[in-house]
Amino acid sequence: CRAAPSQPTMSCAEPCRAKPCHAVPSLAGGKRDNDLILPINSSLSVTLHQDQLKTTTTAAASRDFTEDRLWLNGEEADVGHPRLQACLREVRRLARKRRGGSAEDAAPLSLSYKIHIATENNFPTAAGLASSAAGYACLVSALARLYGVEGELSEVARRGSGSACRSMFGGFVQWQRGERPDGRDSLAHQVAPETHWPELRVLVLVVSGEKKQVGSTAGMQTSVATSPLLKHRAEAVVPERLALMIRHIRERDFEGFGQLAMQDSNQFHATCLDTFPPIFYLNDLSRHIIALAHRFNAHHGRTKV
Amino acid sequence: CRAAPSQPTMSCAEPCRAKPCHAVPSLAGGKRDNDLILPINSSLSVTLHQDQLKTTTTAAASRDFTEDRLWLNGEEADVGHPRLQACLREVRRLARKRRGGSAEDAAPLSLSYKIHIATENNFPTAAGLASSAAGYACLVSALARLYGVEGELSEVARRGSGSACRSMFGGFVQWQRGERPDGRDSLAHQVAPETHWPELRVLVLVVSGEKKQVGSTAGMQTSVATSPLLKHRAEAVVPERLALMIRHIRERDFEGFGQLAMQDSNQFHATCLDTFPPIFYLNDLSRHIIALAHRFNAHHGRTKV
Repeated sequence: CRAAPSQPTMSCAEPCRAKPCHAVPSLAGGKRDNDLILPINSSLSVTLHQDQLKTTTTAAASRDFTEDRLWLNGEEADVGHPRLQACLREVRRLARKRRGGSAEDAAPLSLSYKIHIATENNFPTAAGLASSAAGYACLVSALARLYGVEGELSEVARRGSGSACRSMFGGFVQWQRGERPDGRDSLAHQVAPETHWPELRVLVLVVSGEKKQVGSTAGMQTSVATSPLLKHRAEAVVPERLALMIRHIRERDFEGFGQLAMQDSNQFHATCLDTFPPIFYLNDLSRHIIALAHRFNAHHGRTKV
Repeated sequence: CRAAPSQPTMSCAEPCRAKPCHAVPSLAGGKRDNDLILPINSSLSVTLHQDQLKTTTTAAASRDFTEDRLWLNGEEADVGHPRLQACLREVRRLARKRRGGSAEDAAPLSLSYKIHIATENNFPTAAGLASSAAGYACLVSALARLYGVEGELSEVARRGSGSACRSMFGGFVQWQRGERPDGRDSLAHQVAPETHWPELRVLVLVVSGEKKQVGSTAGMQTSVATSPLLKHRAEAVVPERLALMIRHIRERDFEGFGQLAMQDSNQFHATCLDTFPPIFYLNDLSRHIIALAHRFNAHHGRTKV
């Protein structure tokens, strides 16, 4: 239920089904600002349907809660995480702005109430399936409903996890790098809706359900600091590829789309390997699947996968 | 035995122990000319001691041989391989030049005699251990002895396998890219002899004895044609790293040497991954060993491996 005047003491957001974002690989990039989470290049992803992978998040605020608390997949987790706190702070700021600066106590749901958040993924967490993109997109949506905030929220989601800004939309979504140091123009927008290319299917093959040895955030920071190839990729390769990828999507050109998605995925993993110490997100099974895709396409004489 | 006037009908070169070249990773690069085997960047390697890895090659010429023949690790192989033929042709050309253009029949060993070559590696062939570098270096040395040719032979060895030119020398060896289209300045020279850094040890860990799925030559051709990162690496990264690596070697600075060797090995493998279709020379075991090396060094607080 939404926060309502009749229920000021206990408000809960509807479970908000997430839009986990499976990265079309050209998304991959590093960050130019790790606090504001500003990327070194623009990026693009496809948001999956919630019937398959999804995050479900419930948020509640109450005058009876004595502290903020967070449960992740049924286990209590650290609610003090700076990125979670940044999202909470930003949503409350927007709520305050929306309420026209009226005294908090006069508002239907006090912004000073402590909050309880429960979030759950129906897929492996931190295993390369964009769980933090889905998680933060879902968290920001749930908080926005709780506090009655509407409008552009991708900037807030970005503060939780960069890729979360893209997961605020369905279909094909671009995250504009932006130019401003304060990140106000580093936003996501939809390139094409989910109805645009209904024949497209995303197969998610889980080659390991284990938590990644190096998380995305730490990994990207190290890559930006140590990989000469990443710098070149962000400056000289991605801008051209991104424009090309958008054209392939608009024209529903699977041959072009598939070839470029493969190339760019490989190049992202190449920059991980060029990071020092190197980061490995592919294992032997991933590599067998990649080889299988190439053999399958070669057998059919065109890009079918 | 060397070809000698008293034995004109049957001449055999002494078994020539090879100098297999284990690549200090900055060697890795592509080719700008695949026939002449001209690289897109200069490179550097360490030649291993023949007490460990070695190739042994025997070459014999006789008027009684009816055809050229080749045995590789005990099995007859294709003697018509263009690169093997190129080496044979070049050594004979040098022999002819040395004999001052005298009629062939007057020479101690006729250059028109058919040739038999037997070559053997005491380590896995085509498995990433530079077997073709050792093999062609050894072949060219054996042929040179057979025909009585001396002097600069790295250019000839390069025609067999690029990396073979470095294996003509011991110690630390640089392969100068060169500028000439005919490749006459694309030669190897010794940066420091094997006595320069006796404490240095090369551990060769064989993670797979299987033949590589994509051979070095085909792989490098595809990389040059498809990898945007390789081009950047060759032009913008390698020249600086090579100069730095030579300084580390001269100063016996293992910290600098080891860090740069690791970084450059990773970057070479990154360009393999950026190749399309991607090439994988690392497997899960390689990656575990890399991670182990980093943990070992971290534990000791300095670069020990």
